[in-house]
Amino acid sequence: MRRKKSRLVLRKRAAPGTAPGLLVADPTAAATTVAAIGYGPDRPGQGLDEVRNVEPTALSKLDPRGGVRWVDVVGLADHAAIQAVAAQFGLHPLAVEDITNTHQRPKAEVYEGHLFIVFRMVNANGPVEGEQVSMVVGRNWVLTFQERPGDCFEPVRERLRQGRGRIRQTGADYLAYALLDAAIDGYFPVLETMGEAIETLEDSVVTDPDRRQVEELHHIKRDLLVLRRAIWPLRELLGALLRDETSVVTATTRPYLRDAYDHAVQLMDIVETYREIASGLLDVYLSSQSARLNEVMKVLTIIATIFMPMSFVASLYGMNFDTTHPFNMPELGWPFGYAFALAIMAAIATALLWWFKRKGWLGDGKGG
Amino acid sequence: MRRKKSRLVLRKRAAPGTAPGLLVADPTAAATTVAAIGYGPDRPGQGLDEVRNVEPTALSKLDPRGGVRWVDVVGLADHAAIQAVAAQFGLHPLAVEDITNTHQRPKAEVYEGHLFIVFRMVNANGPVEGEQVSMVVGRNWVLTFQERPGDCFEPVRERLRQGRGRIRQTGADYLAYALLDAAIDGYFPVLETMGEAIETLEDSVVTDPDRRQVEELHHIKRDLLVLRRAIWPLRELLGALLRDETSVVTATTRPYLRDAYDHAVQLMDIVETYREIASGLLDVYLSSQSARLNEVMKVLTIIATIFMPMSFVASLYGMNFDTTHPFNMPELGWPFGYAFALAIMAAIATALLWWFKRKGWLGDGKGG
Amino acid sequence: MRRKKSRLVLRKRAAPGTAPGLLVADPTAAATTVAAIGYGPDRPGQGLDEVRNVEPTALSKLDPRGGVRWVDVVGLADHAAIQAVAAQFGLHPLAVEDITNTHQRPKAEVYEGHLFIVFRMVNANGPVEGEQVSMVVGRNWVLTFQERPGDCFEPVRERLRQGRGRIRQTGADYLAYALLDAAIDGYFPVLETMGEAIETLEDSVVTDPDRRQVEELHHIKRDLLVLRRAIWPLRELLGALLRDETSVVTATTRPYLRDAYDHAVQLMDIVETYREIASGLLDVYLSSQSARLNEVMKVLTIIATIFMPMSFVASLYGMNFDTTHPFNMPELGWPFGYAFALAIMAAIATALLWWFKRKGWLGDGKGG
Amino acid sequence: MRRKKSRLVLRKRAAPGTAPGLLVADPTAAATTVAAIGYGPDRPGQGLDEVRNVEPTALSKLDPRGGVRWVDVVGLADHAAIQAVAAQFGLHPLAVEDITNTHQRPKAEVYEGHLFIVFRMVNANGPVEGEQVSMVVGRNWVLTFQERPGDCFEPVRERLRQGRGRIRQTGADYLAYALLDAAIDGYFPVLETMGEAIETLEDSVVTDPDRRQVEELHHIKRDLLVLRRAIWPLRELLGALLRDETSVVTATTRPYLRDAYDHAVQLMDIVETYREIASGLLDVYLSSQSARLNEVMKVLTIIATIFMPMSFVASLYGMNFDTTHPFNMPELGWPFGYAFALAIMAAIATALLWWFKRKGWLGDGKGG
Amino acid sequence: MRRKKSRLVLRKRAAPGTAPGLLVADPTAAATTVAAIGYGPDRPGQGLDEVRNVEPTALSKLDPRGGVRWVDVVGLADHAAIQAVAAQFGLHPLAVEDITNTHQRPKAEVYEGHLFIVFRMVNANGPVEGEQVSMVVGRNWVLTFQERPGDCFEPVRERLRQGRGRIRQTGADYLAYALLDAAIDGYFPVLETMGEAIETLEDSVVTDPDRRQVEELHHIKRDLLVLRRAIWPLRELLGALLRDETSVVTATTRPYLRDAYDHAVQLMDIVETYREIASGLLDVYLSSQSARLNEVMKVLTIIATIFMPMSFVASLYGMNFDTTHPFNMPELGWPFGYAFALAIMAAIATALLWWFKRKGWLGDGKGG
Repeated sequence: MRRKKSRLVLRKRAAPGTAPGLLVADPTAAATTVAAIGYGPDRPGQGLDEVRNVEPTALSKLDPRGGVRWVDVVGLADHAAIQAVAAQFGLHPLAVEDITNTHQRPKAEVYEGHLFIVFRMVNANGPVEGEQVSMVVGRNWVLTFQERPGDCFEPVRERLRQGRGRIRQTGADYLAYALLDAAIDGYFPVLETMGEAIETLEDSVVTDPDRRQVEELHHIKRDLLVLRRAIWPLRELLGALLRDETSVVTATTRPYLRDAYDHAVQLMDIVETYREIASGLLDVYLSSQSARLNEVMKVLTIIATIFMPMSFVASLYGMNFDTTHPFNMPELGWPFGYAFALAIMAAIATALLWWFKRKGWLGDGKGG
Repeated sequence: MRRKKSRLVLRKRAAPGTAPGLLVADPTAAATTVAAIGYGPDRPGQGLDEVRNVEPTALSKLDPRGGVRWVDVVGLADHAAIQAVAAQFGLHPLAVEDITNTHQRPKAEVYEGHLFIVFRMVNANGPVEGEQVSMVVGRNWVLTFQERPGDCFEPVRERLRQGRGRIRQTGADYLAYALLDAAIDGYFPVLETMGEAIETLEDSVVTDPDRRQVEELHHIKRDLLVLRRAIWPLRELLGALLRDETSVVTATTRPYLRDAYDHAVQLMDIVETYREIASGLLDVYLSSQSARLNEVMKVLTIIATIFMPMSFVASLYGMNFDTTHPFNMPELGWPFGYAFALAIMAAIATALLWWFKRKGWLGDGKGG
Repeated sequence: MRRKKSRLVLRKRAAPGTAPGLLVADPTAAATTVAAIGYGPDRPGQGLDEVRNVEPTALSKLDPRGGVRWVDVVGLADHAAIQAVAAQFGLHPLAVEDITNTHQRPKAEVYEGHLFIVFRMVNANGPVEGEQVSMVVGRNWVLTFQERPGDCFEPVRERLRQGRGRIRQTGADYLAYALLDAAIDGYFPVLETMGEAIETLEDSVVTDPDRRQVEELHHIKRDLLVLRRAIWPLRELLGALLRDETSVVTATTRPYLRDAYDHAVQLMDIVETYREIASGLLDVYLSSQSARLNEVMKVLTIIATIFMPMSFVASLYGMNFDTTHPFNMPELGWPFGYAFALAIMAAIATALLWWFKRKGWLGDGKGG
Repeated sequence: MRRKKSRLVLRKRAAPGTAPGLLVADPTAAATTVAAIGYGPDRPGQGLDEVRNVEPTALSKLDPRGGVRWVDVVGLADHAAIQAVAAQFGLHPLAVEDITNTHQRPKAEVYEGHLFIVFRMVNANGPVEGEQVSMVVGRNWVLTFQERPGDCFEPVRERLRQGRGRIRQTGADYLAYALLDAAIDGYFPVLETMGEAIETLEDSVVTDPDRRQVEELHHIKRDLLVLRRAIWPLRELLGALLRDETSVVTATTRPYLRDAYDHAVQLMDIVETYREIASGLLDVYLSSQSARLNEVMKVLTIIATIFMPMSFVASLYGMNFDTTHPFNMPELGWPFGYAFALAIMAAIATALLWWFKRKGWLGDGKGG
Repeated sequence: MRRKKSRLVLRKRAAPGTAPGLLVADPTAAATTVAAIGYGPDRPGQGLDEVRNVEPTALSKLDPRGGVRWVDVVGLADHAAIQAVAAQFGLHPLAVEDITNTHQRPKAEVYEGHLFIVFRMVNANGPVEGEQVSMVVGRNWVLTFQERPGDCFEPVRERLRQGRGRIRQTGADYLAYALLDAAIDGYFPVLETMGEAIETLEDSVVTDPDRRQVEELHHIKRDLLVLRRAIWPLRELLGALLRDETSVVTATTRPYLRDAYDHAVQLMDIVETYREIASGLLDVYLSSQSARLNEVMKVLTIIATIFMPMSFVASLYGMNFDTTHPFNMPELGWPFGYAFALAIMAAIATALLWWFKRKGWLGDGKGG
């Protein structure tokens, strides 16, 4: 049930001081495949043509008339292919570097002729740090670059294919919104899983405090930090897109972008709430532990305090003084000496029990 | 006395990536009923006509001349009815989606021709997360959409019916204010209940620290987080309405809106104060526990420290060395050997008690 | 010495949803009396006429020529009188509601023709939440509404009567400033008392940690929260008055208002410093407790660790094995068996004491 | 080595409600002396004339032609002299009140014709709250008012006397900067002393946790709060001077003022860093204490757990049952009964030691 | 593996109050060497000439035509050389003072004709506070001043020498960017090392809590504070450069500067994340300790609670009452008295074990 531990150390692959725009090979990167979808009212094929495993250089053959092209590059191993795509659409060298360096902070940057957006996409079953998606939005085209196969854009592709909703009638900016919104929506199930884990801990930490819960809590707080690091700048970039009067986002798409922004704000809200609850749970754990310790110590103290004086009395009458001398332990020779000793012990025990009772130590085990 | 535990996990019902504006059926939603009130100086029926269980399509028959219409939709199960109402008043598809998706963050959004406001309404007896109310304010109409029957708008309806105050003479914006203000007022009793719970804990946590108080405190802090998540954006949206020169809010209504804003600020103040006091109480609890533990350990230490040496002396004279040898435990043969042993024990006890006294351990049980 | 515990729950008396501007009777409100002072260079009676227990309706008889009128209403029980005063000076209904509802957050609001200010006035001997004062400032009049008899305005009245300072030569805005400044000055003695309490705790928490100090600290932190809730918005409202180019505040009065603002900032500074010191004291308390526990446990451990092995040896030679068998406890028959046993015990005690010494446990009782 | 404890309670001497601008006698104020320096290219005496113990009324005799006058008033007891100086330079009454009331928050205020600045000056050997310095900057004069003799302006006087640097060629604003900068520089040695105290604690708190370190830490945190209360508004006032286009600060002096501002920012940086490290040290202390307690308890537990069963066995064979009955303690009569008993005890001890070993409790004393 | 402890106390060498612009000799400063590189399309030597150990006065001989000059001064001991360089490029006296005083807060300041930037450069093997680098950027020249030999600018020099990338074709502002970017890149390996140390601690603190981990954590948090003090203002200064429309930064270089800014933001992100995780680890440590203490105390309590009553029974029958009296310890004479006593003891032990079992104390050693 525990998801893979998120990476804390994000290795920047380029050596310090190398020229910007230089692409450094990443041996763990996935193989590159390119797919493209073109759509629009005036296009052939019921307004949509889709190709997979397209050669980067063949992209220009996609009919550009009157429609929107979405080129989706998956896997970042083949730098030549990425460079080819980038060259074809005139990307800035820094944008290309950011695409291949997968530890970018989510951001939106305006270059001449295109808008460059980086964000992270999570998956309910994958690691909590997700994968980096770079998106470039031009006048009538959208490029996306993903780290690995498998994404949350499939519903958008389906909507495009089936012509559902308004997506086929709108421009590149609406497609960009749709993809961003799909990525944002992908965070909700991840947070839900965490919320459930927290609720489970909330119950168990009180009834049965256990060291492993602290570990669990630490991992949840850590994952929430990782998520916050992805969501906070995502919110910022959406807010910046809304405020900026960039030519790329049309007035029609603006309310939808605002809706996506609201969702990002809501995500941050949930993350912060979860973090506060998780912190509170640690306090609950510590006070549960402290209450348990008190309880344990009370048991020890009561037992020791009652039996130590009684044992002392018993030891006393176990001494071997010569009782032929009249002042040496005359009690031993009394006919009811044993009863006398037992009575003393019983009196001690009773007095102490009464004292503990009065102090409230013989409680109901509620641990105070 | 404990209210129902608030939900931490807010399930977003639409699958990630679905088209915006798409309404997803919620099997737990309450059945939809529509009520409408029209009023204004020029209207028939002493300036007010009210209908209940009106057909959505029949809304247009309400006489729109020179007055204000308030359409109140309760229960979000019947999407067709909601769509019908929305169509009639020209709502934006995103607004309609937000109405039916009941996990919105409170917000105000300006669409062409109408203002869309979402907030949460709590009830002193219900769950602390309350229910979502969506309100759309047009030039001379107000729509409200509630999750469940039962609301805090009844006093507003009464004021409309009886023509008390200025409400019948004013426009749609004043009605919107009145409804918002009623919802804000509804938070005060909820917070009062919490304040009382905190005051009760304040007394008991000192006199009788108990593990269950930590649980109680955790639940209060959690509920305060839930309330803050509802009130903070509510304050923000009221502030935005005040700052924005939207055509919807008239100059006459503005001071009233500012008053509502002040109340929201006051709510946030109270929530923050309660949160700080609750956090402080946890510290008081922990230090009470720690003081108790010290007290328990002092009792144990005093008893053990006094009786261990005494018991040792008793054990010593319980040894069975052959006393026929003159150096083997000659004390046993002394005529006052027993008195000698008792005197040693008494001396040990007295010395230790004096030492404890000097250290201040034989205190007044105040737990220091 | 402990002041009355401040109220956490502020009851809002009007039921949720009632019309704004509606006054709700408060059975605990003090009886209403009205006093008035008129002054100015051109006025009769050496430029000052003062009346007490004036009928609200008789206020108009006060000569308004060329001077300033200050009407002081004390006690909020008589709504009719308050309404009469309000009507005479043309107050906004919302201002009247705020005057009688004594749980307002301090604020300043500009209505047409008058400035409405609410703040709280504390008293060194009274409860820390003080009482609400509402002040309305017009072109040449000032109204004040207080909850209870007794205020900190007497020195202002004296200055008016004796014509000391510039107060008799200036306008209504300067009088408003003088009253605000008197209220702000009233916070300093209250904070001084708290500062003294904190300094007392600072000494005692280290020398003699005691559970009651935590309670005391909790009450101080709570009172500081209550004060902050009064002072923070007071500072805000003064800042807003300074920034706003309201016609009410003249250029001559502005530097004085800035001075009052500086005092409010200083108050906030002190409150925040006290809060941090109080939080720090709790840490000192907890670490003192923890050090004490360590000391107690060390005593117990040392005593138990020394006497347990010694008692064991004594018990060993108290066994009753049949010594006629040569291997059964031959020590008992040795001529120096007793000395041998004592030597073993002494050796054990010495070795352990040396070990404790080396570990630094036989310290100087400094509790580390 | 410990500096005097800083005062927490700042007594405001004027009674609440007294007129602004009223000077209240402070019996503890130092006697007033006035010194003056005039300089400038055109002045006689090599461009500098300096007088000490000048009569306030004689100030006008200082030659004002073409130069800058610096009047330095030390000791605030003689209100008449202060008023005389103030009158001669046309100070605002509120400025005069702030000069004599020595608990001002650092601030800069623009009055007509002069700039009024209040700040605090510390001294490495004096109390950490230092003394208040009020500075008034006019077109070609600077007034300073200090609480006590002894200041950090001596190097500035030397530079004036020796004509070093640019100070003799520049205006009043540069002199004001030079004095401010000298006061700011005075904070660095104070913070250095604190930094050294913190570094000393950093070492000792780990090797030898001791209750007195918590006290020491508390005092350091308290002193840092006092310093922050002086430095934070100082930074603010310098920032405000930089932003404001006041006529007093010339373009030539502006870069120097920016430099002073940078130093104030650096001071705040250091204060905040020290505060965080001091807070962290408390955590280190608490965890050291907790580790020590664990160690102590492990020793106790190991000893008790080993000797209690062994003592029990010894007690068992110390019972006095009548061994003539064959089932009553036949072990006592066994030829190797003693060896048997010792073997049992050894077995118990060995088993427990093995168990503790496996649990890792017989560690290296590292306190885990 | 532990890097050298960072210095907390930054000694400001100039005495308080000395004239600004005065250079104070630092006996520990490294010897000064000057190197220079000139490049540009029109320059001889394939567009690049590089000289080392150049005389400061000989700098003017570098051919200034149509290219960019980078003068790199390493070691700050020789003030005369620094002054000579500064004079040649017309630096402001305050800039020169900041260059030689190596405790500047990172900042960017605009002087007439040049931009002055101070930042800190770290090295994966050196101390975490790194060294100060001052950079002055003119129209076609860049000066850098470093504290010590060894820097992270070597890759930039290589790029210049080999003419790789765009660096040879661009102006002084791009060179300044390239140097800043190299310094920023240098922080990443330092943070990576810290991240690895934190990940190591994350594992060990749970499995084997140990007092030394707290020390380690304290040092990590301290180093992070030092890094934050360098990175935060670095981010600020880059942001200010981006916002300011300074003539020095050209439009072509601006996107690169924005990229450097993004990297600084990312560094701050990592620092803050690490700080939060380190704080969380302390909580994990404390709760691990607390769980361990509970476990230890449970073992002690169980053993003591079982053996104390059993030992008491044994002591009881070890008493020496005269059994000739029929009521004195008749059990001793019973034929099965021993068995009876053993049975009682077994019953006690069984009952207590059952009770502990029910309380859940005989757990799985998971430490709750």
